Amino acid sequence: MMDYPQFGAGLWNFASYVDRYATDGYGEPRSTIDQIRLAGQVGELTYVDLNYPFTPGVSLDDVKSALAEEKLKAIGVTPDIYLRQHIKGAFTNPDPAARATAMELLNGAADAVRALGARYVKVWPGQDGFDYPFQVDYDQLWRLAVDGMRDLAQANPDLKFVIEYKPREPRTHMFWCSAPKTILGIEEMGVDNVGVLLDFGHALFGDESPAEAAQMLINHGLLWGMDVNDNYRGWDDDMMVGTMHWTETLEFFHVLRKNHWEGVWQLDQFPFREESVENARLSIRFLKAVHRALDLLDEDGLARAQEAQDALAATRIVQNALFAASLED
Amino acid sequence: MMDYPQFGAGLWNFASYVDRYATDGYGEPRSTIDQIRLAGQVGELTYVDLNYPFTPGVSLDDVKSALAEEKLKAIGVTPDIYLRQHIKGAFTNPDPAARATAMELLNGAADAVRALGARYVKVWPGQDGFDYPFQVDYDQLWRLAVDGMRDLAQANPDLKFVIEYKPREPRTHMFWCSAPKTILGIEEMGVDNVGVLLDFGHALFGDESPAEAAQMLINHGLLWGMDVNDNYRGWDDDMMVGTMHWTETLEFFHVLRKNHWEGVWQLDQFPFREESVENARLSIRFLKAVHRALDLLDEDGLARAQEAQDALAATRIVQNALFAASLED
Amino acid sequence: MMDYPQFGAGLWNFASYVDRYATDGYGEPRSTIDQIRLAGQVGELTYVDLNYPFTPGVSLDDVKSALAEEKLKAIGVTPDIYLRQHIKGAFTNPDPAARATAMELLNGAADAVRALGARYVKVWPGQDGFDYPFQVDYDQLWRLAVDGMRDLAQANPDLKFVIEYKPREPRTHMFWCSAPKTILGIEEMGVDNVGVLLDFGHALFGDESPAEAAQMLINHGLLWGMDVNDNYRGWDDDMMVGTMHWTETLEFFHVLRKNHWEGVWQLDQFPFREESVENARLSIRFLKAVHRALDLLDEDGLARAQEAQDALAATRIVQNALFAASLED
Amino acid sequence: MMDYPQFGAGLWNFASYVDRYATDGYGEPRSTIDQIRLAGQVGELTYVDLNYPFTPGVSLDDVKSALAEEKLKAIGVTPDIYLRQHIKGAFTNPDPAARATAMELLNGAADAVRALGARYVKVWPGQDGFDYPFQVDYDQLWRLAVDGMRDLAQANPDLKFVIEYKPREPRTHMFWCSAPKTILGIEEMGVDNVGVLLDFGHALFGDESPAEAAQMLINHGLLWGMDVNDNYRGWDDDMMVGTMHWTETLEFFHVLRKNHWEGVWQLDQFPFREESVENARLSIRFLKAVHRALDLLDEDGLARAQEAQDALAATRIVQNALFAASLED
Repeated sequence: MMDYPQFGAGLWNFASYVDRYATDGYGEPRSTIDQIRLAGQVGELTYVDLNYPFTPGVSLDDVKSALAEEKLKAIGVTPDIYLRQHIKGAFTNPDPAARATAMELLNGAADAVRALGARYVKVWPGQDGFDYPFQVDYDQLWRLAVDGMRDLAQANPDLKFVIEYKPREPRTHMFWCSAPKTILGIEEMGVDNVGVLLDFGHALFGDESPAEAAQMLINHGLLWGMDVNDNYRGWDDDMMVGTMHWTETLEFFHVLRKNHWEGVWQLDQFPFREESVENARLSIRFLKAVHRALDLLDEDGLARAQEAQDALAATRIVQNALFAASLED
Repeated sequence: MMDYPQFGAGLWNFASYVDRYATDGYGEPRSTIDQIRLAGQVGELTYVDLNYPFTPGVSLDDVKSALAEEKLKAIGVTPDIYLRQHIKGAFTNPDPAARATAMELLNGAADAVRALGARYVKVWPGQDGFDYPFQVDYDQLWRLAVDGMRDLAQANPDLKFVIEYKPREPRTHMFWCSAPKTILGIEEMGVDNVGVLLDFGHALFGDESPAEAAQMLINHGLLWGMDVNDNYRGWDDDMMVGTMHWTETLEFFHVLRKNHWEGVWQLDQFPFREESVENARLSIRFLKAVHRALDLLDEDGLARAQEAQDALAATRIVQNALFAASLED
Repeated sequence: MMDYPQFGAGLWNFASYVDRYATDGYGEPRSTIDQIRLAGQVGELTYVDLNYPFTPGVSLDDVKSALAEEKLKAIGVTPDIYLRQHIKGAFTNPDPAARATAMELLNGAADAVRALGARYVKVWPGQDGFDYPFQVDYDQLWRLAVDGMRDLAQANPDLKFVIEYKPREPRTHMFWCSAPKTILGIEEMGVDNVGVLLDFGHALFGDESPAEAAQMLINHGLLWGMDVNDNYRGWDDDMMVGTMHWTETLEFFHVLRKNHWEGVWQLDQFPFREESVENARLSIRFLKAVHRALDLLDEDGLARAQEAQDALAATRIVQNALFAASLED
Repeated sequence: MMDYPQFGAGLWNFASYVDRYATDGYGEPRSTIDQIRLAGQVGELTYVDLNYPFTPGVSLDDVKSALAEEKLKAIGVTPDIYLRQHIKGAFTNPDPAARATAMELLNGAADAVRALGARYVKVWPGQDGFDYPFQVDYDQLWRLAVDGMRDLAQANPDLKFVIEYKPREPRTHMFWCSAPKTILGIEEMGVDNVGVLLDFGHALFGDESPAEAAQMLINHGLLWGMDVNDNYRGWDDDMMVGTMHWTETLEFFHVLRKNHWEGVWQLDQFPFREESVENARLSIRFLKAVHRALDLLDEDGLARAQEAQDALAATRIVQNALFAASLED
């Protein structure tokens, strides 16, 4: 029997969605509890990342009970700091009052992390950034983003915070947009409880090599979480893992293994039109094949090929492993 | 006094919006009537394109009255064939029942065109297409898309229909995605009441030259409407005209003038976080400057430069005209 | 033993290269004969596509002999209509004298096709197009491109010509840039001896679905040749097949098989820094696996999934086949 | 009379070019001296950046004389560490012998800087990076790139070095690819004589805001040089300034002015098919208009708009200034 990693998923993998066109939603709204039930049905998940606040009428105790019943644990809590109140930004909002309400939400999420025994608050300030040239003073933007995160981290020294960067959407330019910029910002904070959650698809979308971004974050001691999905590189499509980029997905996990990174393999997908449970199962099926392919990889041969930067030798070895890894274990 | 073209705007320029993150909306919902009032406040608009159905509780008579009071006319009606009922497609939905309800909506929009004395039904089947490799049979997709439009056009021979193409969003691949593909589809329909509405930003986003796309459509007798906006080329950002691409905006309108295209200059913008009225006014201010720049263009010199495909001479002439066109008339 | 398709390769797969930085070349220049020898060493190739004119000092008889010795046949001949003489265009050059010399080269290539018993002249007018907004009159460009191809085809009614489209490079905008635009142009020519060679990577680069483009060309009776490679979607990287896009490569060949398309599977790769023979072998190894995966595909299940446009079911079936196809046959 | 900045240009603006298609070149080769003569003809340039080694047969004294005659000064020297000898990398070449020859070239360029009284060695290691997933060990790549630059800087403590980053080409992934990654690398070097030359077009191409990248580099004390050009965002097209992105060009220079950055405004353009001198003149004509527009900008109003992150107010102010800045001074 394989020694698989633990799998997780953002609870929003099991939500329904709206966008600017289907304003009445891609399905009936689902409560936090509905979403936990669906996550449980997957049968492969150990962890979930929960949006905070929970949907109306759902209490912390309700969540704890549902998680327990589905044998799920909370890995993180993601505060909704990108709703109407904060469409001009959470940390970088020009209005101090809006920054204050964002901070309240973030501290609420921190309390939820404590209550649920989760590992971190996940910070994704989707509305922090700008849309037009000349719209912002970049100095001011930097200070607001960095000072705000530092304040939050210092106010909660018992907790960990992870920033999830992404190049754009819903702003045309998001502030935390790449691995190296996020590292620079965290360095400037001068705190030790802020790290990074690397989203494979965000790195692809931002023309990073996800594997290289992972290595860079690991070298700075900042890779504290990750999630995977897939896309066409031009947008954060949040498609099923393994539908587009086989080699780069394998390479990403190879870098994690090589560095003895022992975290949870999480899903961050938006199945707008697909059934959520099967969507997650298919993705995990692929991730298991990736895990078996890593076992089959000729590591010595690959190390020699990389030492020589020999793309041909490396490709042969990698394809051997991928083709040999059956989907059935 | 300048002899400006008539200006128009999709009524959605004055709506509020949601997206997959700010699910509670970028502002309070606005009724069709609210939107007409705002369009009227711009003070520069002659035409609007209206979504159909109108927002709940708003009747056709309400709309007629509001338009009359704001001195606005309807140029087109855009049926909402991309809501929950049709998230898997309108014309290309695999379910015949869903195709039938889409057709009802389209025929409803046709009736609204008749009632409002508008020029066309604008067809933007945003959910027609696919998301994943292997998801569809491309033959079947083509037949559903083309046959459906033909049926619609033949059922309403007294009306005109315009297809607005766009590369993607909300599908990763939309069916009507480029000027030449849309021309091919319309040719195959074999009807004379289907044309194209060219969205400048969609062409940019699809790596077309908007001016070249316009020329191609004009040569096929199919450019029956257009709208403008701007973006960063990587997405349909629906930003204000003139914020990014000055030269290509001027070139687009130059091709229209050279071909004696005498239609309405329409706006298609989504001011998620901006005030709608000023957003439209600024855009029209820029369009007026474009119009004046066209009057200042050394057409003989430009024709000689283009005859020689001389980028340097053409650029000098174009920049002379743009810089000479003051924003104040 | 598998019943594989015949494989081919552009002879430039075995050339050395220059670019705007390594102006002294990525390796020693190789003669047409050198390139044929390398193609022969691959041991898997039946066909080659040859650049015309041959390198200095190489005669038609030399080529014939070398091909015979290496057991290779010519599938096509590609005239070099993108060298210094034609940097402002071949068909669309503003200078009639340059258009005339391009036509001479094209007719020379036609004679080579006859002499070698090849199937077609491959026309890739890399310098036809434009770089700047306002540089060209799009009407004139269209007429030059379409009329020139028609003249060429009519002057050589015994031969076939295939146009290879590509979005850009070396112009920022190439004239023949997508499947539907090329179809429209060929329709307007009104000849029956001009078709299309579809390059998988060009379609990817142009944000087409390569499989959909193939289906569209087949439906118009115009898919007369194809070649494959891979890239990061943002450029025509001409990388080894199967290094990036497994699913879309399989889908492309699935559409060909479904339509009983029985042509040669050709390579178009530029191994700037890689050894040519192994580069081709690895690519063909992958193509064989693709061929076996097609045999393993649950066609009935896939047809049902596509009928329902069910991405989940289709993905499961496709991944089953890909994982089951070992690299060793 | 306006108090314009000093203008400069890479000497390669006046070279002829080859690429992978026009292998016989876009024109006759030009010697370093030919290029200096053309730079002199522009009549607006004070500085040039010179490739090193000079073209065959051209001595240092020849260059000094030609520069003096054309009243030009050397701002920097750019060693050709991307030719055949280093196609697998200069600093990151897997072969120590190739790294050693690259270091010789770099030290030769350092001597040329001393001899010419220039300000810096410009380091653009175009072949440092990778092409395929799994090709390199990212740790090794980072160490080679960073350690090599540190060694070079420490061996020449009397000189300044500037790294010019760029996302890709001629590798699919270049090592020094963005502003923040370059800052991180320089921090790790721990030297004080390595900075950055920011190329406006590279930032655009890499989906950075060039203005934001400039601000970030200035804040780290690392913006030691810059050059401008324009492109379609999808590639480093090296087109004339001001042909595509008016607003972002103005914003870039606005950030420089606001920070009292007093360097040379340099051109980095590749006029493949255009006449070099007019190409440079047109670009400088546009830059002068940009400079005048900065004088006309309502700085107080803009500061208030940016304080409020008000895109509408900022856009109105910026367009007022751009339209008021006539091209003739």
